[in-house]
Amino acid sequence: MTKEELYQHILRKKSYLCVGLDTDLNKIPRHLLNTADPVYEFNRQIIDATAGFCVAYKPNIAFYEALGPRGWESLEKTLAYIPEDIFTIADAKRGDIGNTASLYARTFFDFYHFDSVTVAPYMGEDSVKPFLTKPDKWAILLALTSNAGSQDFQLLSVSSGNKQNFLFEQVLQQSQTWATDEQLMFVIGATRPDYIERVRAIVPHHFLLVPGVGAQGGSLADISRLGMNRQCGLLVNSSRNIIYAGSGTDFAQEARREAQQMQQEMESYLGEFLPQ
Amino acid sequence: MTKEELYQHILRKKSYLCVGLDTDLNKIPRHLLNTADPVYEFNRQIIDATAGFCVAYKPNIAFYEALGPRGWESLEKTLAYIPEDIFTIADAKRGDIGNTASLYARTFFDFYHFDSVTVAPYMGEDSVKPFLTKPDKWAILLALTSNAGSQDFQLLSVSSGNKQNFLFEQVLQQSQTWATDEQLMFVIGATRPDYIERVRAIVPHHFLLVPGVGAQGGSLADISRLGMNRQCGLLVNSSRNIIYAGSGTDFAQEARREAQQMQQEMESYLGEFLPQ
Repeated sequence: MTKEELYQHILRKKSYLCVGLDTDLNKIPRHLLNTADPVYEFNRQIIDATAGFCVAYKPNIAFYEALGPRGWESLEKTLAYIPEDIFTIADAKRGDIGNTASLYARTFFDFYHFDSVTVAPYMGEDSVKPFLTKPDKWAILLALTSNAGSQDFQLLSVSSGNKQNFLFEQVLQQSQTWATDEQLMFVIGATRPDYIERVRAIVPHHFLLVPGVGAQGGSLADISRLGMNRQCGLLVNSSRNIIYAGSGTDFAQEARREAQQMQQEMESYLGEFLPQ
Repeated sequence: MTKEELYQHILRKKSYLCVGLDTDLNKIPRHLLNTADPVYEFNRQIIDATAGFCVAYKPNIAFYEALGPRGWESLEKTLAYIPEDIFTIADAKRGDIGNTASLYARTFFDFYHFDSVTVAPYMGEDSVKPFLTKPDKWAILLALTSNAGSQDFQLLSVSSGNKQNFLFEQVLQQSQTWATDEQLMFVIGATRPDYIERVRAIVPHHFLLVPGVGAQGGSLADISRLGMNRQCGLLVNSSRNIIYAGSGTDFAQEARREAQQMQQEMESYLGEFLPQ
């Protein structure tokens, strides 16, 4: 999917919501456990209920991998079920030397048909570039994450020439020589709104994938006000708050209600903050 | 496996060789493609041929993941086949927020029974700690990798208090508050022998997993002379040089010859450099 197509879907749906499919056998409604593929069955019903209110789905690969080979089968079926006009993100946080990164890219882009993969920056350019070889496929690079550990290294002060930057700023800067905003996005946690202006000073036009709203404490209003650009430029993720909104046979309706509520809030922020 | 057990295996086998199982359907001998599970069949024969000369096996998870669900089945069978006294490394370079990292740890430690997982440091403490909860399981943290991109961020100069360090030194230092050398190892590429003394100044007692000997140009002699400590403290990896030494029906004998040659070189370095 191209950047312009993604933006058009955002305008049409009046939403920049990404639903995180962190599907956990221990958390899904008990009545689904008797079906042939409970993980897929759960995802299918969540997708049916929420597809009208979101523009992206983000399966967290750890949850599928943890189930062994059958988890990957559930993932494959889930990807095939997601409507064509919804952006898909393999939240895999991969990062390895070039030939290995190429394999990961092949896996997620060609085998599972994802639009994008989250990638860790620590190993540098040749670990990221293999994700940037196809015109409508994306790498989403970790920059400033939403967890407590983000302060251990991402907020270290680094010297580059005679300038002092945070490490995450160096990641934003350096990676721009690898690809344009048509192929590269960044993960910026909602739990750090105080840094959004610094982020936008370096990458005004890029899309940001924003985790950390809801369960982790980030504010949708803050991130929307501070982070929105002319093509919206935000995909705000919610996982647990939506997919586990209910735990009974009506779980999909509960998820729908929650997704719709976020969409409505986003609709108002698009009206308020999207530059004309 | 405990650190002392690993050291005893090194003494007994006179080897600190790790064989990388980067098994690629496009590279294995053609005659194996007619078997029911070519990847497993290749690994089984490589293991039979090399187990006497190495102390660790390191499947690169990308190669299995790229094959879809059946790749994970090949991986599971491979792990079950590796002898108990050989240390196993899931080269997965995972790194995610706490609850997701816990899932990855469960996958590799409990489902596939690996002894260790390679982990990326960028997301900090809570992304690594879930790999450190079981007494004889290990996290192997990326510090200074062997690829060209290692210079993009790992060699940035960072300020901590009034000291200047390379980022990889900060990773070595900070992670020592998370676990001891009984649960934590570091990836240090053989292509950067000039930094080994700096590494050993910070982590004198830890094991280092060393990729980059052979195809990538690192020298086994240099890394052994500069990096060896009282319990050897080195696991030197070789992948392609060993497993693709031959491409005919005698591929396993070729792999055996190559592994034995590395073991013999290591035996001499153990005699020369292991502190008494």
